[in-house]
Amino acid sequence: MNEKALFKLTYGVHVITSKKGDRINGQIANTAIQIAYDPITVTVSINKNNLTHAYIKDSRTFAVSVVGQDAPLSLIGQFGFKSGRDVDKFEGINYKLTPNGVPYVTDYTLSYMEAEVLQEVDAGTHTIFIGKVIGAEVLQEGTPMTYAYYHEIKRGSVPKTAPTYSALKEPKPVSEKYVCSVCGYTYDPELGDPDGGIAPGTAFADLPEDWVCPVCGAGKGDFEKA
Amino acid sequence: MNEKALFKLTYGVHVITSKKGDRINGQIANTAIQIAYDPITVTVSINKNNLTHAYIKDSRTFAVSVVGQDAPLSLIGQFGFKSGRDVDKFEGINYKLTPNGVPYVTDYTLSYMEAEVLQEVDAGTHTIFIGKVIGAEVLQEGTPMTYAYYHEIKRGSVPKTAPTYSALKEPKPVSEKYVCSVCGYTYDPELGDPDGGIAPGTAFADLPEDWVCPVCGAGKGDFEKA
Repeated sequence: MNEKALFKLTYGVHVITSKKGDRINGQIANTAIQIAYDPITVTVSINKNNLTHAYIKDSRTFAVSVVGQDAPLSLIGQFGFKSGRDVDKFEGINYKLTPNGVPYVTDYTLSYMEAEVLQEVDAGTHTIFIGKVIGAEVLQEGTPMTYAYYHEIKRGSVPKTAPTYSALKEPKPVSEKYVCSVCGYTYDPELGDPDGGIAPGTAFADLPEDWVCPVCGAGKGDFEKA
Repeated sequence: MNEKALFKLTYGVHVITSKKGDRINGQIANTAIQIAYDPITVTVSINKNNLTHAYIKDSRTFAVSVVGQDAPLSLIGQFGFKSGRDVDKFEGINYKLTPNGVPYVTDYTLSYMEAEVLQEVDAGTHTIFIGKVIGAEVLQEGTPMTYAYYHEIKRGSVPKTAPTYSALKEPKPVSEKYVCSVCGYTYDPELGDPDGGIAPGTAFADLPEDWVCPVCGAGKGDFEKA
């Protein structure tokens, strides 16, 4: 078996959100798809260790916010590489609540849909939540970010809790580049960090001391030469 | 609810194949994703009316062939708009069989994976088949075709049995264009039909009499002015 065969599958990038009582949380997931049209049904696959998993189990409801291609890596870092057990995922993020109190992200997102869990399916490391869509709105026009775009163009990395995590996918070390030891993001001087105001051609050593990893927010000291 | 919110979800284009005894069949589906990594698990969502559904139910096995961006509309038409009850879907198609006898398409495909059904989930119009991947190979390098690319660039249409079928998605009538009454494909003279050797700028009336719909193979007589 060549695991790389699975890398050819196509995904979007979404913030999956839920609530427990008056607490809210969210996380990045690529696995949001529509699987039936009558009723309109969507599924998400969520790692059992994640706080969002516990919230969906509790409230039986979730929302999917579709991330646009122009979203900065920091949005994905905030929801994808931090735990709602440690931080308020929504700090500094614009969001709204559905009538049922489920949050959806309004920064850099194209649309959202809210679903009530109809069924859940145990899939080893993950649970598949199958939800009937009860509300959905377009937030702005634009191109959805694909997972491939996130990897290849944005040069983003993948947390170890993702369904598609694979050691094979981690960036290969190349001289002059620096890798974030927290999340695996690679700083490539040739590309800089346009989201963070760093021009292409800026050496790692020349980055300001308060520069942080655009994905997870780790400091320069957390980077290692690749 | 605005159903267009769901159009922002991202999908690939795949041929889902299965077998029953020594008979083989396949169909297009956009819903193939990896949903867990231990074991490596993929899901597909298949309309209950489709022959491939019956074959997967019988053999408990399926394969996913990932269609590349360069595939002609005719490949999608052959597997997406015809029924294996009426035609041999593999006629004129290059394919191979896995050791278990499940076919995978080798024309214009980037990779395939074969799975054994672990669970099936009733989702109204569709069944979600959850499968453990038992074999997978890369067939060629290239860019996977996304569903958005199929719609926007290739101008393909969607059968009424697809999970994402929506009357909203059908092409809007525009003067000079002709719509296939079988599958809904729109012939746009401005674009021609490069896959079929028809140059951009060719009026519908000037198409050769043996020209056929690039998606479903219907003749010129099956087209109506949009």
